[in-house]
This record gives sequence, structure tokens and C-alpha cells, in this order.
Amino acid sequence: NYFAGIDVGSTAIKVAVVDAEGLLVGVHVTPSGSLFHKNSLEALNTLLAKVGLQREDVRYLIATGYGRKLFKEADDSISEITANAIGAFETGKAFGGVRTIINIGGQDSKAIQIDNSGNVVNFAMNDKCAAGTGRFLDVAARNLELDLEDLGDCHFQATTAPLTINSTCTVFAESEIIGLLAKGHGKAEIIAGIHYSIAQRTVRLAKRVGIEDRVYFDGGPALNKGLVAAIQDELGRELVIPEHPQTTTAFGAAMLARSEYLEERSAGQD
Amino acid sequence: NYFAGIDVGSTAIKVAVVDAEGLLVGVHVTPSGSLFHKNSLEALNTLLAKVGLQREDVRYLIATGYGRKLFKEADDSISEITANAIGAFETGKAFGGVRTIINIGGQDSKAIQIDNSGNVVNFAMNDKCAAGTGRFLDVAARNLELDLEDLGDCHFQATTAPLTINSTCTVFAESEIIGLLAKGHGKAEIIAGIHYSIAQRTVRLAKRVGIEDRVYFDGGPALNKGLVAAIQDELGRELVIPEHPQTTTAFGAAMLARSEYLEERSAGQD
Ligand code: SF4
Repeated sequence: NYFAGIDVGSTAIKVAVVDAEGLLVGVHVTPSGSLFHKNSLEALNTLLAKVGLQREDVRYLIATGYGRKLFKEADDSISEITANAIGAFETGKAFGGVRTIINIGGQDSKAIQIDNSGNVVNFAMNDKCAAGTGRFLDVAARNLELDLEDLGDCHFQATTAPLTINSTCTVFAESEIIGLLAKGHGKAEIIAGIHYSIAQRTVRLAKRVGIEDRVYFDGGPALNKGLVAAIQDELGRELVIPEHPQTTTAFGAAMLARSEYLEERSAGQD
Repeated sequence: NYFAGIDVGSTAIKVAVVDAEGLLVGVHVTPSGSLFHKNSLEALNTLLAKVGLQREDVRYLIATGYGRKLFKEADDSISEITANAIGAFETGKAFGGVRTIINIGGQDSKAIQIDNSGNVVNFAMNDKCAAGTGRFLDVAARNLELDLEDLGDCHFQATTAPLTINSTCTVFAESEIIGLLAKGHGKAEIIAGIHYSIAQRTVRLAKRVGIEDRVYFDGGPALNKGLVAAIQDELGRELVIPEHPQTTTAFGAAMLARSEYLEERSAGQD
């Protein structure tokens, strides 16, 4: 008996499968593209093939994320806030438990406070403004002619303090980045400045929900070690970074699929 | 005796010259580029040559706008709110007087309420977010592969209702525009939708200061007749569009240069 969660995001589709004990069997991440439904199905099948499972081994499947309604094969769907909270709560146990979750997605950012049992106490979300989301990193990488994956390493090559990026708006920041390059500033100092700009915005969002230890950071941008360092610096605390930061929400959906299935079955046996 | 105003904006430098009676002698508009000071000086000299004046014919020169501090040659400098109010008040007389000013600049937007004597009663400004500014039009024109000057005509070629642009953020709207094009929607319907999106934001800004008749609309985007139509529609009123919408603020600075000069001279004669 296996259980799957699929997180149909605006930028990437993330899939996670857990076994009957709730142990993670595997994860898979692929770009969303424009064909959400087709790509979601492919992502699921790719993961199943990777871990040697058949579609019928998956007893229950829960979809979450921006495009969750488009994935009709799911047995149920759930908001990404709840799925993220469950995933972070379960993953956080190995780190001594987490109470605050910061998630930066491709086109949004969220802060969630959970209690000691993993229930959502409070949350705040920005999905209206590209600043403070993964999109700002995409735009910056393009302007700096760097690969997204290299931003983290580049951050640590800065030989002076991070530059201050004055524009809070991603559009205006683009012009500012181009201006800084034209003035001869280094890419490393610029990208460090951008990481701090996103970090400040992220910490403001987290403060709105209240910051309790420990603070878990997930979403694709959590793979960027420069951004992690900047957020830790602005926050004045260590962050818990999971092994698979992109798939916490999908993992949470899979864990919920498992518990919903077990509950239904035990209810059926009553 | 002549008087000049120079509006050193983020996108364009605007110059206006008036004579001793306060009549407009000429205007000139040129891109700001990166060398604000040099380009400002050139813009002034170009206009003087165009109207057949020497630098010494200009008795008093007032700088305004974003980069006004960079133009050291000015005798004085003034905020763009005040200069815009003076320019619109003076220009508006020919239209029976104006009380509300909407200005959309290259990187900002403003709403100003003035009283019957031209004094600023109230104003609101957005210079933090590219949405609702001329920058959104630049970005849209680029995505639609249209010239900025053609957006207005294109607007009126729409054969269906304007499309709704759901993203308030310029960055997210870019993806939305590309998505709409990919789905086969026409450029005209898309650009009309963008004009309405900017219009809604502009009217919200104007409502914050209070809308009194008549409403004057200036700044480069006021040259775009599609945007003018959309704002009129959202506002439910006619707009007063000056002959030279880009140079109202420079004209206001020139008018102030004239009155400051005349005051100083009459004070000197006391
Ligand atoms: S500030 Fe910039 S990034 Fe944010 S909503 Fe406005 S246009 Fe988008």
C-alpha cells in the first residue's frame, strides 16, 4: 500500500510517494509547462517507474497547489497551506520539531505558524507581487546571465558587502541591476544584495504570522544557499532546511492521503 | 526675457520655455539615458536653438522631477507635484479650469487635487510598483511586439470586449499576456485589457485624493488614446488632455521660474 501527493505548482509539478508506514519512498520534480494535466500525469508515472511501483499500488492520491483542480485523477484535493504544514510538521520531527514555516514558491511566498500538533495557527501569503517570490530570482538570474542554480555559489564569491537594492519592485529592480552592472559592480555583490532584498521581505511576511522556533524553510529557492544565509542573517536564527525542499508540500499531501485512507478503511471496518 | 523649466524624469527629460507674459514659446522631449546631467543640458540647448534663443535670454531656470538635483545649472528646484499642479492649473484655464490632475509617468503615477487658485490640496503617488505606470505599457508593448506609439490605435481595433488581465503585477501580467497570445487572442483585445487594468488602478489612486471636475490627464501615456478612453470609461467623466501632455510639469516649472524672477525683481526695486 502506497500513497501519493502531487503539488501542481505554477512553476513546477512535485510528486511524493510514501509507504504504509509514512516513510518517503521517492520524489520527483518537473517543470509545469502549459499542459498542467498531461504533465502532472507524466510526473506521477515517472516517479512510479523510478521507484518500481504500478499505478494500482497507489491506494490514495491527493492533489494540492495552484493547479490542483486540473488534476482530475486525484482522490481528493487540499490547500497548499495545509499540505505544506503537514509536510513540514512531519519532516521537522527529525529536527526536534518546527513551529514556523517559510515557503518561497515560483510565484508566491507564504509564512505559516503551526502548533505542537501540526495544526495551522496562522498564515500569511503573497501571490500578488513578484518581489519576494522565486520569480524575482529568475529575473535576476536572467539579467545577470547566470543559471538559477549558480546564484547560491555566486553569493559567497562576493568580496565586499552585499549591494543595497533600492527598488522593492521586481520590474524596477531589473533596471537597477542593469545599472549596477553598467557601473562595474560584480555579479556576486549584486546577487547577494538581491538575496538580502528577498530575505527582508520574507522576514516581514514571517513576522506577520509570528516567528516561533524552529523555522523551517522550503520551496525551490531553499536550495539556494546564498538566500538561506541571507534569511538566517535577517532572521537572527538558524533555518531548518529539509533534504528535499521542493517537495515538502507534495510529501504533506501524500501523508494526508495515507491518513485519510487508513481512517476510511478503519471506519469501513467498524 | 524668457524663463525655462526642465523636468528631469526617470524616462524622459522635458524642457519648456515661456516668455515674459507666461506664453509658451516651445517644448522639447528627449530620452533621459544614463547621463542625466549631460542630456539635460543638451535638451535645454536643443530647445533654445529650436526657438532661436540664447542661453542668456533665459533669466531664470527651475529644475523639477526625479533627477532635478543633478542639474546644477538650475537657479532653483521644485518638487514635481508642485510643478505639475502649476502647469495643469495654467493650462487648464483654457478648458474652464481643472481641479484634479492625473499624471502617469515612466516609472510613477500621481493624483493631485488643487483648489480654484491652483494650490495643492491633496495628492497621492505611486513610485514603488511598476503596475499603473508607463513601465507597464513598455513591458506590454514589448511582449506584444508593438511600438509604444501604436498601442492607442491598436486598442480601437479590438472586435470583442477588452480581455480581463487578472494579474495586478506587471511581472505576472507578462506571463499572462504571453499565455493569452498563445491561446490565440488578438493583440488589440489584450492591449485594451491592459489599458483597462491601468485605468482601474489610476482611478483608485485618484479616488484617494478625491475627484473634482475637471480632471486633467498628463504625462507621456496621456498621448495614448486607448488609455485615455479606458480611464474616461472607468472614471465616468471626460478628461482634459493638454496639447503637450508630456511637458505640463516642465511648463509649470517655467511658469514658476517666471513668477519667482518677477517677484525677486520687484522686491529688489522696493
Ligand atoms: S511592485 Fe513590481 S513586482 Fe510587485 S506587484 Fe508591483 S509590478 Fe509587480
